Amino acid sequence: MTAKQILESGKALTEQKIIDVLNMPACRYDSVINAMKYSALAGGKRLRPSLLLEFYRLCGGEYIDDALCFAAALEFIHTYSLIHDDLPCMDDDDMRRGRPSCHIKFGEDTALLAGDALLTLAFRVASSTQNTKPELTLKAINLLAERSGVHGMIGGQVIDLAIENSGADLDTVFDMYSKKTGALIRVAAEIGCILAGADDKKIAAAIDYANNIGLAFQITDDILDLTSTAEELGKPIGSDQKNNKSTAVSILGIESAAEYVERLSSNAAESLSVFGPQADGLLELSKILINRKN
Amino acid sequence: MTAKQILESGKALTEQKIIDVLNMPACRYDSVINAMKYSALAGGKRLRPSLLLEFYRLCGGEYIDDALCFAAALEFIHTYSLIHDDLPCMDDDDMRRGRPSCHIKFGEDTALLAGDALLTLAFRVASSTQNTKPELTLKAINLLAERSGVHGMIGGQVIDLAIENSGADLDTVFDMYSKKTGALIRVAAEIGCILAGADDKKIAAAIDYANNIGLAFQITDDILDLTSTAEELGKPIGSDQKNNKSTAVSILGIESAAEYVERLSSNAAESLSVFGPQADGLLELSKILINRKN
Repeated sequence: MTAKQILESGKALTEQKIIDVLNMPACRYDSVINAMKYSALAGGKRLRPSLLLEFYRLCGGEYIDDALCFAAALEFIHTYSLIHDDLPCMDDDDMRRGRPSCHIKFGEDTALLAGDALLTLAFRVASSTQNTKPELTLKAINLLAERSGVHGMIGGQVIDLAIENSGADLDTVFDMYSKKTGALIRVAAEIGCILAGADDKKIAAAIDYANNIGLAFQITDDILDLTSTAEELGKPIGSDQKNNKSTAVSILGIESAAEYVERLSSNAAESLSVFGPQADGLLELSKILINRKN
Repeated sequence: MTAKQILESGKALTEQKIIDVLNMPACRYDSVINAMKYSALAGGKRLRPSLLLEFYRLCGGEYIDDALCFAAALEFIHTYSLIHDDLPCMDDDDMRRGRPSCHIKFGEDTALLAGDALLTLAFRVASSTQNTKPELTLKAINLLAERSGVHGMIGGQVIDLAIENSGADLDTVFDMYSKKTGALIRVAAEIGCILAGADDKKIAAAIDYANNIGLAFQITDDILDLTSTAEELGKPIGSDQKNNKSTAVSILGIESAAEYVERLSSNAAESLSVFGPQADGLLELSKILINRKN
């Protein structure tokens, strides 16, 4: 598959799965279900599930419906983290993807609970595989919880809050990146391989690829925060500077940061060799991610 | 086991497991780990894990360490729900179990993330069983996510928020109870049976017992909110009246509510017959729960 196909089919399949899972009958707690749908179906690249599905395909996975359980789970976790991150006690962001953020639209209480419900739903849908060996599903659930938990994504959020306004060195910033955004990108690749029953060599290569593009993706975000426009990004620009936030760009400068992204991108390319020419789409993808405008 | 033994050993074993799981090395995100420990080790009856462990024993479960993974998971979920429930955008409670609530002690942002981290950790520890058949662990995880999610505990929270200040009929109040507090009590009993490989008849009896004591427990809470003291409860009394909240007591009156609790308690007793005299401790427990002072 080409990079375009990976992203387009990943997005289409995952969004259909999300629609199916969130298709719930009318009830007394519709308000929170509406908030869950609003945020989970707000668009976005669906990068994580696309990676999961492509590594699943590369490793010979046969049960696409089972892989989609985890694709949706990843997006539910990503979405909940954005809802909670936007809350007044966190980043206090009114806009997300060009629309009012969840708590602006539905109120803080409903947004909080919608986030909690999406996180919980992630594990419900992940534990709903039908044909995959139970021990593989269980291993994937364990990894998903590990990478999205206190030693992964949430730990990254905490570091992010801690270094706001206080400054940080590059080591701390990279630790934050590898957890806050890197952990979910990495686990997407890992789970794709694990569900397909891949061997350790392939799993290690997928992790290496994901670690490199995850960091490149985040540094590119920092660069775009300075060089893009609010229209292109769908959110205010310059927020890192405004918040006096230490980023790779504020520490390295734009030019060195961009060079570093190039290096990460070629590292990612190298790690794909174990998958042969079948992985050309992922190779192309790593280039697209660092040349994006939003 | 007697009721006292069920509660004492359940509490001791579960708290040791919680301590072990939360024993994490020093790191850049200690703040959130400290908040997790503060709230997860704040005491409490540990009713849910005690029920889980007792049903596991009654159904002949052999791997206590695996049952404890779910005992801790239940308490992590219960704890996260209390932390988020106390936040200013929800019930805005400054005190919990006689101490400052999590966000008063650690700040709103850390409390929010500590709740998220405990919820995520619940699924990590639940997916860490070692000797139980993977398909049973997977079924238990799926149920745990179902009962604590939007159609269970969280749905109950949403109904609770929706009926605040607006009044509700008994049907709505009971629906709220069965979800907000009932769902986790029910799933504790279910998971205890499922992990032990129990047959459907025992699972159904356990659910029946749990549904009855869950509702009795909640109505007793409402009664105590009117009849107890702040010292006994470890939190302010009269909060339901102050918030103009519809409860079983506000609708039925204290006397009828107390009679109803008695009826639920004897229903619970009847459902235990399938377990024979081995279940005498659970019989006794249902009486203790409705005669408690806090």
